[in-house]
Amino acid sequence: MTLNPFYIDELIKNAISEDVNYIDVSGAFTVPAGRRDDAYLVAKGDGVLCGIDVFTRVFELLDPTFTCDKKLADGDSYKKGDVLIEMNGVTTELLRGERTALNILQHMSGIATQTDLAVKAVKGTGACVCETRKTLPGLRAIEKYAVLCGGGRNHRYNLSDCVMLKDNHIDACGGILPAVAALREKLGHTVKIECETRCMDEVRDALEAGADIIMLDNMTPQQMADAVAVINGRAVTEASGNVTLDNIASVAACGVDIISMGSLTHSAKAADISMKIRTNET
Amino acid sequence: MTLNPFYIDELIKNAISEDVNYIDVSGAFTVPAGRRDDAYLVAKGDGVLCGIDVFTRVFELLDPTFTCDKKLADGDSYKKGDVLIEMNGVTTELLRGERTALNILQHMSGIATQTDLAVKAVKGTGACVCETRKTLPGLRAIEKYAVLCGGGRNHRYNLSDCVMLKDNHIDACGGILPAVAALREKLGHTVKIECETRCMDEVRDALEAGADIIMLDNMTPQQMADAVAVINGRAVTEASGNVTLDNIASVAACGVDIISMGSLTHSAKAADISMKIRTNET
Amino acid sequence: MTLNPFYIDELIKNAISEDVNYIDVSGAFTVPAGRRDDAYLVAKGDGVLCGIDVFTRVFELLDPTFTCDKKLADGDSYKKGDVLIEMNGVTTELLRGERTALNILQHMSGIATQTDLAVKAVKGTGACVCETRKTLPGLRAIEKYAVLCGGGRNHRYNLSDCVMLKDNHIDACGGILPAVAALREKLGHTVKIECETRCMDEVRDALEAGADIIMLDNMTPQQMADAVAVINGRAVTEASGNVTLDNIASVAACGVDIISMGSLTHSAKAADISMKIRTNET
Amino acid sequence: MTLNPFYIDELIKNAISEDVNYIDVSGAFTVPAGRRDDAYLVAKGDGVLCGIDVFTRVFELLDPTFTCDKKLADGDSYKKGDVLIEMNGVTTELLRGERTALNILQHMSGIATQTDLAVKAVKGTGACVCETRKTLPGLRAIEKYAVLCGGGRNHRYNLSDCVMLKDNHIDACGGILPAVAALREKLGHTVKIECETRCMDEVRDALEAGADIIMLDNMTPQQMADAVAVINGRAVTEASGNVTLDNIASVAACGVDIISMGSLTHSAKAADISMKIRTNET
Amino acid sequence: MTLNPFYIDELIKNAISEDVNYIDVSGAFTVPAGRRDDAYLVAKGDGVLCGIDVFTRVFELLDPTFTCDKKLADGDSYKKGDVLIEMNGVTTELLRGERTALNILQHMSGIATQTDLAVKAVKGTGACVCETRKTLPGLRAIEKYAVLCGGGRNHRYNLSDCVMLKDNHIDACGGILPAVAALREKLGHTVKIECETRCMDEVRDALEAGADIIMLDNMTPQQMADAVAVINGRAVTEASGNVTLDNIASVAACGVDIISMGSLTHSAKAADISMKIRTNET
Amino acid sequence: MTLNPFYIDELIKNAISEDVNYIDVSGAFTVPAGRRDDAYLVAKGDGVLCGIDVFTRVFELLDPTFTCDKKLADGDSYKKGDVLIEMNGVTTELLRGERTALNILQHMSGIATQTDLAVKAVKGTGACVCETRKTLPGLRAIEKYAVLCGGGRNHRYNLSDCVMLKDNHIDACGGILPAVAALREKLGHTVKIECETRCMDEVRDALEAGADIIMLDNMTPQQMADAVAVINGRAVTEASGNVTLDNIASVAACGVDIISMGSLTHSAKAADISMKIRTNET
Repeated sequence: MTLNPFYIDELIKNAISEDVNYIDVSGAFTVPAGRRDDAYLVAKGDGVLCGIDVFTRVFELLDPTFTCDKKLADGDSYKKGDVLIEMNGVTTELLRGERTALNILQHMSGIATQTDLAVKAVKGTGACVCETRKTLPGLRAIEKYAVLCGGGRNHRYNLSDCVMLKDNHIDACGGILPAVAALREKLGHTVKIECETRCMDEVRDALEAGADIIMLDNMTPQQMADAVAVINGRAVTEASGNVTLDNIASVAACGVDIISMGSLTHSAKAADISMKIRTNET
Repeated sequence: MTLNPFYIDELIKNAISEDVNYIDVSGAFTVPAGRRDDAYLVAKGDGVLCGIDVFTRVFELLDPTFTCDKKLADGDSYKKGDVLIEMNGVTTELLRGERTALNILQHMSGIATQTDLAVKAVKGTGACVCETRKTLPGLRAIEKYAVLCGGGRNHRYNLSDCVMLKDNHIDACGGILPAVAALREKLGHTVKIECETRCMDEVRDALEAGADIIMLDNMTPQQMADAVAVINGRAVTEASGNVTLDNIASVAACGVDIISMGSLTHSAKAADISMKIRTNET
Repeated sequence: MTLNPFYIDELIKNAISEDVNYIDVSGAFTVPAGRRDDAYLVAKGDGVLCGIDVFTRVFELLDPTFTCDKKLADGDSYKKGDVLIEMNGVTTELLRGERTALNILQHMSGIATQTDLAVKAVKGTGACVCETRKTLPGLRAIEKYAVLCGGGRNHRYNLSDCVMLKDNHIDACGGILPAVAALREKLGHTVKIECETRCMDEVRDALEAGADIIMLDNMTPQQMADAVAVINGRAVTEASGNVTLDNIASVAACGVDIISMGSLTHSAKAADISMKIRTNET
Repeated sequence: MTLNPFYIDELIKNAISEDVNYIDVSGAFTVPAGRRDDAYLVAKGDGVLCGIDVFTRVFELLDPTFTCDKKLADGDSYKKGDVLIEMNGVTTELLRGERTALNILQHMSGIATQTDLAVKAVKGTGACVCETRKTLPGLRAIEKYAVLCGGGRNHRYNLSDCVMLKDNHIDACGGILPAVAALREKLGHTVKIECETRCMDEVRDALEAGADIIMLDNMTPQQMADAVAVINGRAVTEASGNVTLDNIASVAACGVDIISMGSLTHSAKAADISMKIRTNET
Repeated sequence: MTLNPFYIDELIKNAISEDVNYIDVSGAFTVPAGRRDDAYLVAKGDGVLCGIDVFTRVFELLDPTFTCDKKLADGDSYKKGDVLIEMNGVTTELLRGERTALNILQHMSGIATQTDLAVKAVKGTGACVCETRKTLPGLRAIEKYAVLCGGGRNHRYNLSDCVMLKDNHIDACGGILPAVAALREKLGHTVKIECETRCMDEVRDALEAGADIIMLDNMTPQQMADAVAVINGRAVTEASGNVTLDNIASVAACGVDIISMGSLTHSAKAADISMKIRTNET
Repeated sequence: MTLNPFYIDELIKNAISEDVNYIDVSGAFTVPAGRRDDAYLVAKGDGVLCGIDVFTRVFELLDPTFTCDKKLADGDSYKKGDVLIEMNGVTTELLRGERTALNILQHMSGIATQTDLAVKAVKGTGACVCETRKTLPGLRAIEKYAVLCGGGRNHRYNLSDCVMLKDNHIDACGGILPAVAALREKLGHTVKIECETRCMDEVRDALEAGADIIMLDNMTPQQMADAVAVINGRAVTEASGNVTLDNIASVAACGVDIISMGSLTHSAKAADISMKIRTNET
């Protein structure tokens, strides 16, 4: 698994423990212990798959005899009606893991699907789409990975691996130039400096200070186009603020390198994927 | 805090640790260690507040000197432009906690706000709105609580505290009546039995079996109205399946007691709330 | 495993870590690393088995080559002298896991055995036996499951899945009726309301309020019989308070539906089961 | 707190999380959020108190405004009817923590009380009473401490801090003397060697091998007296196996130094202590 | 605390739990519970302080009444004989926390002190000193921070925040240029690419591929000087491999920007700092 | 594995999670998912191997298809140039686990190697070498085990399993004799008492009090020889304080039983062992 497998196992175990205080009373009291069934996943709409290995890991952890045949891999597109995977396992475990496995898969695939739409909307421009740090608590790793599977790029992972200079940092140092100078005294050589800007003066300061990335924060298309022209390739440009699927093409048209969208993760819509358990042994 | 405070603290600590590998390089290298600032939250749209005590707990855990004046409590409605809270604290900690605190607050308030809209849409009917088990991994407690703050009711917490008989359970026992009979042999007296039904025959079986709650799964309004008439108060009725804000009123008009909506939690849209840090000491 | 397997693994790992700071000095310094031995469990008294899968899980986690042949399953009765399981494994691991595995098995089987005695004592009456929330910290899941294996039923799992109205709740609302009315404003449709009562007036209030379950708290047999007569099937009746194996039959004779016994879990006596390691390779 | 406070906090948080999935529905829906009440603990029988600081820690963790006046400390004796502590706190938190706090206190005091009876039964002989490793999973620290508070001594904490040579170790080395010789090659100077013996020949071997402690395992009083005479102070003597309050005095009369009782922890009976919440503000 | 405080608390709690199975028998049985004492830290050699806030956090967590007066802060130099802090607290807690607190402080100050020596050795050149990922398990955050306090810079935190192209990555893609091209397809805009090189051909490839950082791996001074000349500021240059305090000046003289030293963390020598407890109340 | 395997797995998982926020960007973006490679470990200097099973466990946890052929076991000596193990596994997992696995192996082997040198330096005397409690947070178990593999003995594990009377304990009781008397009132029979002494008067007091072990703290060789003569086998003697490889032989020559060296663990130098990945499939 490309993701840290220990984090994934912990995520699954916590989710199952949320969902089972001690036993699944419905399954334990009605389904014979040894019974096995086939099951499959079917798409109820179009999308990009993400999290299929996490989905199957739920059942592998619950049931060492679980087997499956994955029809698609993370990052693959699917159409409504497609069967995504065929599975066989102990029935009580299929029932016990179903909701947890689907909750994760639908969230990850929902993010990948939305990212894919954004990426397609800017196709042909030079712009890349990325998410922000507006992720749900404990879910950042799977959410960032879902953006990647949807064709997006990942913004900084957290507060330790990239500088983002905001107005409060800048105020505390007395300006963009002294702020960057303060950073240069301490910052490691692998860490880039991104600077938020809201007007052309700030763009020029950030450029002069040598920022690696200049964020154009909530600017109009015209402001962005002007900023891109001024920067002229001397820094990476990033558009940010209220970008939607409706306006992303016009943002990309301004010539920015990167477009970051908080909604990819903070307002993710679950992909509509359904799990069906066949009846094997009646 | 009404929620289990130890769960909340763990949620916050995990989220902060996701966001800080070792230090916040931006803050640590540009902001003086002792500096304090005022800050506040402002609503960028209308909604129902939820998670304000979790939000402030982030800062209390990071900064024992943090103080605040909450203008609203969980469950209160706010309008665009409203200031929700005034705060004062150590600047580096305000910056370190900001994203984590907002991510949680926006998710909880987003759910409460959406629930509130659903509840208002069925006002005047006897129907209650509730969520499902389609929650994000690790977040069930805060998501269920957000539904409650939005005026909704909570469905079963997990697989241990209520029976939900689905087709697989029923098949394994050879019908609804034998399935309920099997349950009666083992089930505790505090646990209710809910039975999924998709047609009137199943409704009649569930009624005869003595199910406490009868779920009308993906039925048409006419089917639901017929089922409600047949059940006639002898069991709680629950409508489920593809309920949206657009069609919820017509579902409620069928006379069901409960309407469950998966989208309240699985596709929650973040509330638009912004945190501003004032500059105290320039 | 019917129980949440991730909780069980955590329980075992914690218990082993309590028992081994770094190495088992006795085994590590005297027993050759590769040596294998046979072992078995023998009952030193009569009882009902519970926890055999948790017992073997201890050795499976310590030793992937461990094999066993279970003679009995959870819920089965055994007689003094019965061999419960035959095992083979790496000797150092049999020795390292023995105490932890037995401590859990003896506790769970002790509870199941005691429950079985209580259930047998009320046989022929309509009464079911259940435990309370008087469980040991961290052990609730295995203790509730042991009651189930002993033929008992489970009371509410915790404070979230069933209401129990006690005098303090009732006082705070000004009576049973307003308390239940307050609950009806917020409570989910899957949650039952149980009300503690200590006299006939309270029983009548609880009945009028529509409580699902009425607890007859520390009442005399006569009081209980009177209450059962008044309630007359309109609510589930539960007898509680100082029930012992000696008096449980007379409590059941009052016609109550449920008898809850705190001592099943808070004063559980370990089942006397012994593990013997045979010497294979001398 | 004499016990490791971080272990205690973890124990409490886990226990509360077992008891509260998300909220205490009874308290949250009936008791006003700000309400405070007085409460106290009263003994329903005689005993030795243990765990009072753990008990109060439950409420301190839930409610920073909690205050109390402890009338007794760990290790103090109490009589039926004694008030053990007076408390004041937020009512919802008193209700939320009550069961968890009592479950721990009753278990610890139950062990201390039983130990105290055993210690009194051997008074005047030179024998000390101690527990074994037959403790419940996750509870060893509080159970060992409870034995100490009851006037007992603690046996080895776990497999790492004292050698216990059993038949399997001895068989693997070909006898007690080679087993002890093997240990002397590796064992640290702070670790004692205890050797189980079942007959006088084994006692003599253990003595010759230089064991620090000789366990007389399931011997008759006569055998024990003979062994004590042979050992004659050259090793600590420990009687073990089916010791009860009824026979402990006769075991002590054999002149052994230590008597270990598994039942002190594996079959602990909860102390009968009751928490009463007064109604302050009606 | 600049470091993630939740990580630090966890580190401390784990370390104390390693050091205390249940109680500190020496302290619990000889020192009166209420006794308080003064204590202080004294340097037994010269160095750079690091970890003083972690050190005091140990005692704050054990003893809410602990007070102290820090004479120096992280990053400050001290001389042999300097008193670093004066403290007052409950004696049993000073004794219980002493070893754990010192173990952490001595490790962090040892790393800071060694880093300081390396930084001083390259003073006047343009070279910065940094550590590697050769850190001890679980201690990366405090070790990286210690390098920072010693005047060093931090290399990449982990595998997620910077690319390091090694021969295996390069082989898998068929060369440095296709490897970097593959990365450009997926990599986020905040992540730099570092490329290991062992000869001038590789240096030229890395340069042509547009690597942000070029590592000169185990090169001779002459090779490094040649590489620096060829690169000529178009990429950051990093010298790596068997750098010691003895040869670091000659490495720096080659004109490299960064010198990374694994020994700063993988072979850290504890700083010699002693804690003395005064006797207050004799 | 002789060490507690659950502790080891936790150690590894935490270390990997430190090293991977979500994915290994270098490997994930350049190495094909299915590719396998051979790899091996080669010694870059002489030493004693320790931690090889922990090393391989890293890869087993990341890659269930990992296989290996260990050439040496823990405690075996190796020479520069020796191949220690041959391995085969999925390339991305070899790369992901390499640093973590090596960091642990090099630390453990470094300690074992240093211990081996100390043990060899006292060969022929009766002295044993042991470590202290000056271990790194979270690493005590592997560090103590490494000392054992290097031929050393282990001192007490922690504060719970052996008494160490220091000046503060002694002051609090008013002398060594009353301190030991206080201990005798409460201490378990498996726990030894060690007493620190700094002059002959204290040695005599400790001897008279019946201490099991007498530590000669920072004494001169002459003082130690005198103390050993006075003690004359009536207690175990332990030399402690600033013992190095240079002076350890002269310390041993004083006739002490045990020599404890803090530097074995607090200033461990990593063993120089290198992992090479061969290219299988070009």
